[in-house]
Amino acid sequence: MNLNIALCQMLVTDNKERNREKASSMIREAAAKGARMVVLPEMWNCPYSNDFFPSFAEEEGAETYQFLSEEARNSGIYLVGGSIPEKKGNKIYNTSYSFDPAGKLIGKHRKVHLFDIDIAGGIRFMESETLTAGEKMTLLDTEFGKVGVAICFDVRFPDLFRRMTLEGARLIVLPGAFNMTTGPAHWELTMRARALDNQVYLAACSPARDTKGPYIAFGNSLIANPWGELCGKTDAGESIVYASLDNSYIDAIRDQLPLLKARRPEIY
Amino acid sequence: MNLNIALCQMLVTDNKERNREKASSMIREAAAKGARMVVLPEMWNCPYSNDFFPSFAEEEGAETYQFLSEEARNSGIYLVGGSIPEKKGNKIYNTSYSFDPAGKLIGKHRKVHLFDIDIAGGIRFMESETLTAGEKMTLLDTEFGKVGVAICFDVRFPDLFRRMTLEGARLIVLPGAFNMTTGPAHWELTMRARALDNQVYLAACSPARDTKGPYIAFGNSLIANPWGELCGKTDAGESIVYASLDNSYIDAIRDQLPLLKARRPEIY
Repeated sequence: MNLNIALCQMLVTDNKERNREKASSMIREAAAKGARMVVLPEMWNCPYSNDFFPSFAEEEGAETYQFLSEEARNSGIYLVGGSIPEKKGNKIYNTSYSFDPAGKLIGKHRKVHLFDIDIAGGIRFMESETLTAGEKMTLLDTEFGKVGVAICFDVRFPDLFRRMTLEGARLIVLPGAFNMTTGPAHWELTMRARALDNQVYLAACSPARDTKGPYIAFGNSLIANPWGELCGKTDAGESIVYASLDNSYIDAIRDQLPLLKARRPEIY
Repeated sequence: MNLNIALCQMLVTDNKERNREKASSMIREAAAKGARMVVLPEMWNCPYSNDFFPSFAEEEGAETYQFLSEEARNSGIYLVGGSIPEKKGNKIYNTSYSFDPAGKLIGKHRKVHLFDIDIAGGIRFMESETLTAGEKMTLLDTEFGKVGVAICFDVRFPDLFRRMTLEGARLIVLPGAFNMTTGPAHWELTMRARALDNQVYLAACSPARDTKGPYIAFGNSLIANPWGELCGKTDAGESIVYASLDNSYIDAIRDQLPLLKARRPEIY
């Protein structure tokens, strides 16, 4: 079977209410255009900044969680709810909640690789100043098959994507916010390579670029297919990216170019 | 320290003697231009075809092996001798021999992933009709540090490259002959991704394209750096690709974008 997917590359503000309104209107538009799975970007209800994560964080089940569940149910779609700061005791996580078309939670991913980088002449960011890393890989059961969820910097680690694939992933969804240093250099290359190597669809959803915000996201949300080609892509501005994913195409590629069968794990 | 590397993208014929003469002249030219490590392509002494592998195969230590050792010693260079069909008992392997500047063997890689693919509307090739797969990963000790060697289809398997990196590889050399189906679609993408993900240099050396041969190689020999950029590249014709590899750049990239330190192997 096929899956129509839509990535909502929304412009994120420092007003949580306004972010929810924007998310709602984009989710509803995508569903009206036939999307069966809708994806929000990383940190869509909160500016991507250590200055905002603590005050915007919510416990599981709180208002933004309820909002996501209701949007999924109202539109009758799978919703991979990007990520938001999650408060649990005195810790904060970068967390993605996913819901089925009945509004039921079907998965929760806490970013497992925190984004701590300091590039000469480029970006410095230390998520670990405010956030705690998750401890688990995340796979959703959907009508399309298993769907992996990972967040942004998680994509840098090919072993995680190989493991999700070996556990059955057909599609991996990645809310992510690369920046103006790593975005032009690595965003498309990395997404296409993960899709190609694992012969899965990979859908990466970024916030729109806001050159006045505290963190300038690269944008360029995209969907790569199991042959490593792009089958959906936008540029920097606010927009929705659509693609129709074909399960039989995954099988055809895996059959013709048998990268998963030909592994020699005893050697590595 | 730095390493000047040269990739000899030579045109391979069905005349073994002529192939050795061509290899010799390219190796000597590269050394004269300052290369300290010279690389030959996959199956450089034999057409890439199951029809030729058995009759061109030689045992370890035979004439082509001696030729490579002498060329390394004569030019005072590290020589990663591409690959040739190796006969051992009644088996044939796709084997790469590497020599140090004294002409001493420092590593031997037998391709561990045989190239068996059958793409609709594209290429069909079954190495397993004549060849046997190797059983080991290969790392050389050189003055630049550890250097991994893998052959062509081996590059499709990110786990092998991650393992070589974790065992200390700073450079991975890949004699390889992609074709006119997989080459345009995947050659550069895969090479750049392996370099970027593992923060190593990756040098991929193809035969030149011969549209009249039994297998039309893609060519496009290239060197990718630890930031995932190309630092040397040619097109389809016979030529030598040069680059100067910088060990301190590897350390700088690994420090600024700590992909190796930030792994969470307990999760995958």
